[in-house]
Amino acid sequence: MSSHRLSEVAAHINAKLKGDPDLVIERVQPFDNAQPGDIALAADIGYLGRLNESGASAFIVPERLPDGVNLTDGLNLLITSKPKLAFARAIQFLHISDRVATGIDPKALIGTDTRIGAEPSVYPGVVIGRGCVLGDRVTIHPGSVIGDDVVIGDDTTLYGNVTIYEKCQIGSRVIIHGGTVIGADGFGFVPDENGAQVKIPQTGNVVIEDDVEIGANCCIDRATFGSTVLRRGVKLDNLIQVAHNCALGEDTVVAAQVGLSGSTTVGRHVIIAGQAATNQHVTINDNVVVGGQAGVTKDVKAGLFVAGTPAQDHKQWKRAQVLVSRLPELFDRLKQVEKQLDGSKDKTESKS
Amino acid sequence: MSSHRLSEVAAHINAKLKGDPDLVIERVQPFDNAQPGDIALAADIGYLGRLNESGASAFIVPERLPDGVNLTDGLNLLITSKPKLAFARAIQFLHISDRVATGIDPKALIGTDTRIGAEPSVYPGVVIGRGCVLGDRVTIHPGSVIGDDVVIGDDTTLYGNVTIYEKCQIGSRVIIHGGTVIGADGFGFVPDENGAQVKIPQTGNVVIEDDVEIGANCCIDRATFGSTVLRRGVKLDNLIQVAHNCALGEDTVVAAQVGLSGSTTVGRHVIIAGQAATNQHVTINDNVVVGGQAGVTKDVKAGLFVAGTPAQDHKQWKRAQVLVSRLPELFDRLKQVEKQLDGSKDKTESKS
Amino acid sequence: MSSHRLSEVAAHINAKLKGDPDLVIERVQPFDNAQPGDIALAADIGYLGRLNESGASAFIVPERLPDGVNLTDGLNLLITSKPKLAFARAIQFLHISDRVATGIDPKALIGTDTRIGAEPSVYPGVVIGRGCVLGDRVTIHPGSVIGDDVVIGDDTTLYGNVTIYEKCQIGSRVIIHGGTVIGADGFGFVPDENGAQVKIPQTGNVVIEDDVEIGANCCIDRATFGSTVLRRGVKLDNLIQVAHNCALGEDTVVAAQVGLSGSTTVGRHVIIAGQAATNQHVTINDNVVVGGQAGVTKDVKAGLFVAGTPAQDHKQWKRAQVLVSRLPELFDRLKQVEKQLDGSKDKTESKS
Repeated sequence: MSSHRLSEVAAHINAKLKGDPDLVIERVQPFDNAQPGDIALAADIGYLGRLNESGASAFIVPERLPDGVNLTDGLNLLITSKPKLAFARAIQFLHISDRVATGIDPKALIGTDTRIGAEPSVYPGVVIGRGCVLGDRVTIHPGSVIGDDVVIGDDTTLYGNVTIYEKCQIGSRVIIHGGTVIGADGFGFVPDENGAQVKIPQTGNVVIEDDVEIGANCCIDRATFGSTVLRRGVKLDNLIQVAHNCALGEDTVVAAQVGLSGSTTVGRHVIIAGQAATNQHVTINDNVVVGGQAGVTKDVKAGLFVAGTPAQDHKQWKRAQVLVSRLPELFDRLKQVEKQLDGSKDKTESKS
Repeated sequence: MSSHRLSEVAAHINAKLKGDPDLVIERVQPFDNAQPGDIALAADIGYLGRLNESGASAFIVPERLPDGVNLTDGLNLLITSKPKLAFARAIQFLHISDRVATGIDPKALIGTDTRIGAEPSVYPGVVIGRGCVLGDRVTIHPGSVIGDDVVIGDDTTLYGNVTIYEKCQIGSRVIIHGGTVIGADGFGFVPDENGAQVKIPQTGNVVIEDDVEIGANCCIDRATFGSTVLRRGVKLDNLIQVAHNCALGEDTVVAAQVGLSGSTTVGRHVIIAGQAATNQHVTINDNVVVGGQAGVTKDVKAGLFVAGTPAQDHKQWKRAQVLVSRLPELFDRLKQVEKQLDGSKDKTESKS
Repeated sequence: MSSHRLSEVAAHINAKLKGDPDLVIERVQPFDNAQPGDIALAADIGYLGRLNESGASAFIVPERLPDGVNLTDGLNLLITSKPKLAFARAIQFLHISDRVATGIDPKALIGTDTRIGAEPSVYPGVVIGRGCVLGDRVTIHPGSVIGDDVVIGDDTTLYGNVTIYEKCQIGSRVIIHGGTVIGADGFGFVPDENGAQVKIPQTGNVVIEDDVEIGANCCIDRATFGSTVLRRGVKLDNLIQVAHNCALGEDTVVAAQVGLSGSTTVGRHVIIAGQAATNQHVTINDNVVVGGQAGVTKDVKAGLFVAGTPAQDHKQWKRAQVLVSRLPELFDRLKQVEKQLDGSKDKTESKS
C-alpha cells in the first residue's frame, strides 16, 4: 500500500478528474466501508444516489450518469466510461507492492541442467526437476514441485504446493494457485479380455499460454497425444477439471468446480458458470455463456446462453423450470377436464 | 487405545450405568462387528430389538425406549438421552491417544520473526513464513506451507500439504485436512477495452474462528476487501469451494463438493448437502437445510428445507420430480382428451 | 520412445500382421496427425473408409470389417478383435520408457523403522513417517507425504504432493496422481446439547488394492471403523470424493468430480460418469452405468443405466427431459382443451 495524489490515480486509471488533484489517497475500499483517504466505486444508481452516505474522499463514477441522477458539486470524482475497470486498476495501483526478488533459497532443490532467469524468488521447499527453463522474475512458493523439462515464462507465479508434471509448458505472467496439478495423466482406459481396465498411456503435455490465471486445487490433464491447451488470458477459478485434449480459447472465464470432459473445445470470450460440465468432444463456440450446473451434451453455437441438463437455450430452460413447478396444477386441471368430459359424454350419450 | 472400567466410560460420556461397573472395556465398535470388551451403539429399534445378536459387552441405549421394546435383564447398559452423542464421546475417550509433542523438527523451515508457542509438533518439510504467531500445542504435518504474517491459535492441527496464504487468521482447536488451500485470491476480473480480463486484486484475507474443521482439498478464498469468514464450529467436508467474501455462521455443516459463490452469507446451524451450490450474494438464513445438488439462486428464509435447481421448497420439488417422471402418462392422457373432445364435438356438431 | 519392426509390434499387441513385417515403427499417433513411421487406429467406419488420407505407415484394424468396407491391398495392417485394446498396448510398447531407479535421494526424509524395498525412486522433498513398509520399485515424487505405519506394495507410483495418512494400505502397481489425499478423517459429527458439532473420531483406514489408479486432487476418506476400500483395478479420475466406509468393486471406473457419500457400496465393472453423486448407504450393483450429474438416492440393480436426480432408468429420464422441454406446448394444449370444453359445455347446455 502507498499513498498518491488523486491526480496520479486519475492518470494511472485513465479517468477524468473533477475535484482536488492534490487530495491524498491511501486505499480503495468498498462504498459502505470507505473512510477519508479512500476511493470508492459508485458505478450504478444504487450507489450514485447516496454518495453522501459513504466516507470516501473520492469516487469512481461513470461518464454517462443514469437518468435522474445529479451529482452535487464539491465531490472529488474520477470519471470514466468503464468504472469497474478503473476500479480494478486503482486497486492494482494503490494496493499492490512492487515485487522484491528473494533469489533462489538454498533450501530449494534444483535439478541439473535447469536454468532460471534473472531476479527469481524461489522459496525453500521448492523442488524443480532437470532440464527446465524458467524465465526472469519467476516466483515459486514453497512446496511446489516441477517435473523434468518444464518451461516457464517470465513473471510467472506458482503459489504453494503446486504440482507440474514433466514436459508441460507455462507462459509468461501466468498465476497458478495452491494445490493445482498441471499435466497429470488424462483418464483413458480400455477393458481387456477379462474386463480389467488397461491404461492408455498419455504421451502429450499441457500448454498454458501467457496471462492465464488458474485457481487453487484445479486439475489440467496432459493430452493423450499432442497438448491440452489454455490459450492467452484464460481465467480459471478453483477446483476445476480440464480433461485431456481440451482447448480453451482466449479470455475465456470458467467458474469454480466446472468439469470439462476429454477433448472439449471452448472458444474465445466464453463464460462458464460454477459446477457446469461437458460431454466428451463437445464444442462450445465463441462468446457463449453456460449457466451454473448446466450439462452441455452437444455443440453450442456462438453467442448463445445455455442452461440446464441437457443444456438448452437459457430462456427456454427457465420457462420449462417454471412450468415444472406448476406440474401439480397441470395434473389437477387435466383431471378436471377428464371429469368434465366424462360428465359431458354421459349427458351427450344419455340424449342419444 | 486404552482399557477402562465401564463405570469410567459412563462417567465420561455422562450416561446412567446399568450392569457391571467393573467390566473392562477396550473399544467402541459397530453393532454387528463388536466383540467381548467392546461397547456398541443401539440407538433405534433396528438394533434394540436384537441386542443378543451383537458380541458387544455393553450397549449405549436411549433413555426412552421405542414402544414395544423391552430389554432383557443382565445386559450392561449405558443409558442416555443422546445416544449418538454419547457414542461419539465414547470413541473419543477410548480411541484417541494423548497427543505427544514432537517439537520443531530441524528439517522444518521457519521464517524470521515467527513465534511458536509451547509443546509444538512441527514436522520435517514444513515451511512457515515470516512474522507468524502460532499458539501452544499446534501440530503441523509435513508439506504444509504457511505464508507470512499468519496467526494460528492453540491446539490447532494442519495435516499434510495444507497451504495457507499470507495474513490469514486461524483460530484455536481448528483442524485442516490435507491439500486444503486457505487464502488464495478470490476470482475477480473485469474485461478491458479489448475483452482481455483484468485482475481485481484481492486485498483481504480469510478468518477461521475456533473449533472449525475443514476437510481435504478445500479452497477458502481470501476476500476482495475485508475477510472471508468461517465462524466458530463450522464443519466442512472435502473438495468444497468457499469464494471470496463468504461468511458461514456458527455450527454450520457443509458436505463434500459444495460450491459457495462470492459473498454468499450462510447463517447458523445450516446444513448444506453434497454438490449444492449458490449464486453470488445469496443469503441462506439460520437452520436452513439445502438438499444435495441444489442450486440456490435467491435468499432462503430461516428454517426452510430447499432442494432442486433453482432451489425451492423440498416437498414441492419432490412432488414436481415425481410428476416429471409421469409426464409420458400426462401427454397420453391429454392426447386422449383431445381425441375424445374431437369425437364429442363431431357428435355434437352432427346433431346440430 | 523406441523403434521396432512391425512384426514385433504385432506380436506384442497380439494382432495378425498383414503387410511388411520389417517395416520400422517409431510411434503411435492419432489417425489425422500420423506420419510415416507411425501406427494409427482405424476402429470404425469413419476411419476405415479413408485410410488413404492418413500418413500412417500401418493401421490397427478390426477383424470384422463393417459392411461395405473393403480395404485396398498393399496396406500394412495389424488385425485384431479388440482394436482399441491393441492401440493401448501399442502405445505402452512404443512410448513408455523403462523405469530407471534413482534410489533414495538424500534430501528425502525417511522415518525410523521404515523399510523400503529394492530399486526405489524416492525423490527429494518426500517425507515418510515411521514404521512404514514399502515394496520394491516404488516411485515417490517430490512433496509427497506418507504418515506412520503405511504399507505400500511393489511397483507403485505416487506423483507430487500426494498425502497419505497413517495406517493406510496401498497395493502393488497402484498409481496415485498429484495432490490426492488418502485417509483424511471421514465427515462425522453429532450435535451436542447446545447445537455445537461434536466430532466422531474416525478410527479406521483406507485400503487400496492392486492395480488401482487414482487421479489428481481426489479425497479418499478413512473409515469410522474398519476400512474404506477400493478393490483391484478400480480407476478414479480427478477431484473425486470417496467418503468414509465406501467400498468400490473390481474394475469399476469413476469419472471426474463424482461424490460418493458415506457407506456407498459400488459393485464390479460399474461406470460412474462425471459429477454424479450418491446418498449415504446406497448400493450400486455390478455393471451399472450412472449418467453424468446423476444423483443416486437409492439402490440400483445390476446392469441398469440410470440418470437424473433422483436417478432413474436412463431412457425414462431422457424421455421425461424431452417432455419437460415440451411443457409450454402442453400447457397451451390443455388451455385449448379447457376453452373448447367450456364452449362445448355451453352448446350442450344451451340445448337443454
